[in-house]
Amino acid sequence: MKLIADNIQITNRRIEKALAEMDPYPIQELAVKCEKAGAQALDINSGPLLRDPDKKMLFLVEAVQEVSDLPVLLDTANPRAIEAGLLANRKKAVINGFSMEPVKLESILPLAKRFEADIIGYLIYPDSHVPSDSSERLNIAVDLYQECQKRGIDKEQLIIDPVILPMTWQSGNLQNMEILSVISRLPELLGFNVRTIAAISNLTTGQGPKEKKLLLERTYLSMLAASGLSMVMLNMFHSETIQTANACRQFLEPKVFSWEEM
Amino acid sequence: MKLIADNIQITNRRIEKALAEMDPYPIQELAVKCEKAGAQALDINSGPLLRDPDKKMLFLVEAVQEVSDLPVLLDTANPRAIEAGLLANRKKAVINGFSMEPVKLESILPLAKRFEADIIGYLIYPDSHVPSDSSERLNIAVDLYQECQKRGIDKEQLIIDPVILPMTWQSGNLQNMEILSVISRLPELLGFNVRTIAAISNLTTGQGPKEKKLLLERTYLSMLAASGLSMVMLNMFHSETIQTANACRQFLEPKVFSWEEM
Repeated sequence: MKLIADNIQITNRRIEKALAEMDPYPIQELAVKCEKAGAQALDINSGPLLRDPDKKMLFLVEAVQEVSDLPVLLDTANPRAIEAGLLANRKKAVINGFSMEPVKLESILPLAKRFEADIIGYLIYPDSHVPSDSSERLNIAVDLYQECQKRGIDKEQLIIDPVILPMTWQSGNLQNMEILSVISRLPELLGFNVRTIAAISNLTTGQGPKEKKLLLERTYLSMLAASGLSMVMLNMFHSETIQTANACRQFLEPKVFSWEEM
Repeated sequence: MKLIADNIQITNRRIEKALAEMDPYPIQELAVKCEKAGAQALDINSGPLLRDPDKKMLFLVEAVQEVSDLPVLLDTANPRAIEAGLLANRKKAVINGFSMEPVKLESILPLAKRFEADIIGYLIYPDSHVPSDSSERLNIAVDLYQECQKRGIDKEQLIIDPVILPMTWQSGNLQNMEILSVISRLPELLGFNVRTIAAISNLTTGQGPKEKKLLLERTYLSMLAASGLSMVMLNMFHSETIQTANACRQFLEPKVFSWEEM
């Protein structure tokens, strides 16, 4: 299970300010810290970038790549920004992402083909509402897969995001259990070892006591790892969550266990 | 997922001494503490009880039942002790347990029939060596199930223990991942909602740093919960593990999630 930093995001005031002022330093400082904390890829959540999407995403990707060789995830719904990010990208980039929403299929999915980039597909309906059980989610996964096939995108480029729900939503807890079974069933359903990703911060979105949020987060992270999740997107500075991720790896990797490596 | 205290065990010196002196107080004090910590059943691990098995198990069960209404698990390989425990038992008792070892099939399994007691069956070979993959474990589960059927023991009395391996064993980590899939596949394989139990202290048996042991324990506990484990046997005084068990429940129960109940 790979760890992807969700820290570089526009909702972070320092990042918002750095982007407004085109000051690379705070972004680079954060990227380096995430890598030191064990991140294996960096999500760049730029928001919609309504003004100057090309210039801004170019700036963000270059800023990050000046200090880190990690793959970047271009996390925006703005296809112009994604395109600029893919043009600027010198390493491995992942488009984050698309859904069955027609405008996304037309404007975002072709970029995966053109740039041979990996692309994340969300298990949500075209109008962004969330499915109500496992079989709805599996149906959407098949739709996403078939769209890729239709457009000549290699199946190995597809990464599925089942979209974790907030625990405070009606039946959010049970839906999140359904998501575990979706993750474990996807490879057999699609007939290849499809990669999966989940953004764990969704789980505890909204108001709530921090300690309890972290407890839920690390508990669910272990469950996701047991289900075979390929990549988890998370706050790299939640040290107990990272500790738990490392403990999960002790179960997943075929090697002799040793206390020293924990 | 129910919590079963593994605290009342002969390897605890205070319990050993109390049993030698037939002094109920330390045992009762421990039973009450476990119940307060959230235990929903109490495992009474008496060891083999080579001398006076009847008298000693009678003493243990009566001592516990004077202060607690929780079900007890009679955890010994000595059939005479089990029988004495079942005779003394005034509440619900579980035999812990049997395997395909012929002497156990002849001496322990019939007690489940005679007393209509639940009984734990271990997924190990008759000579006590452990299976090497999921399919071997599933085969043994079928054998245990068929032995119960043959002897007229209701399938609902059977509880399966996949037997967690120490992480420090060769491939112990991967075997423990296999165990997760065994737990989730058993109900479909046996054709009914068979209950499962696992003793999590096995995971970290032997020398090792305490903090890391607890981290592994709570991580694996979440994985077990996600796999649908019915009951976990654990040290009720590992407060972080208990916290994690409670967090797991927030995912498993069909009710509105609230931070207050965490």
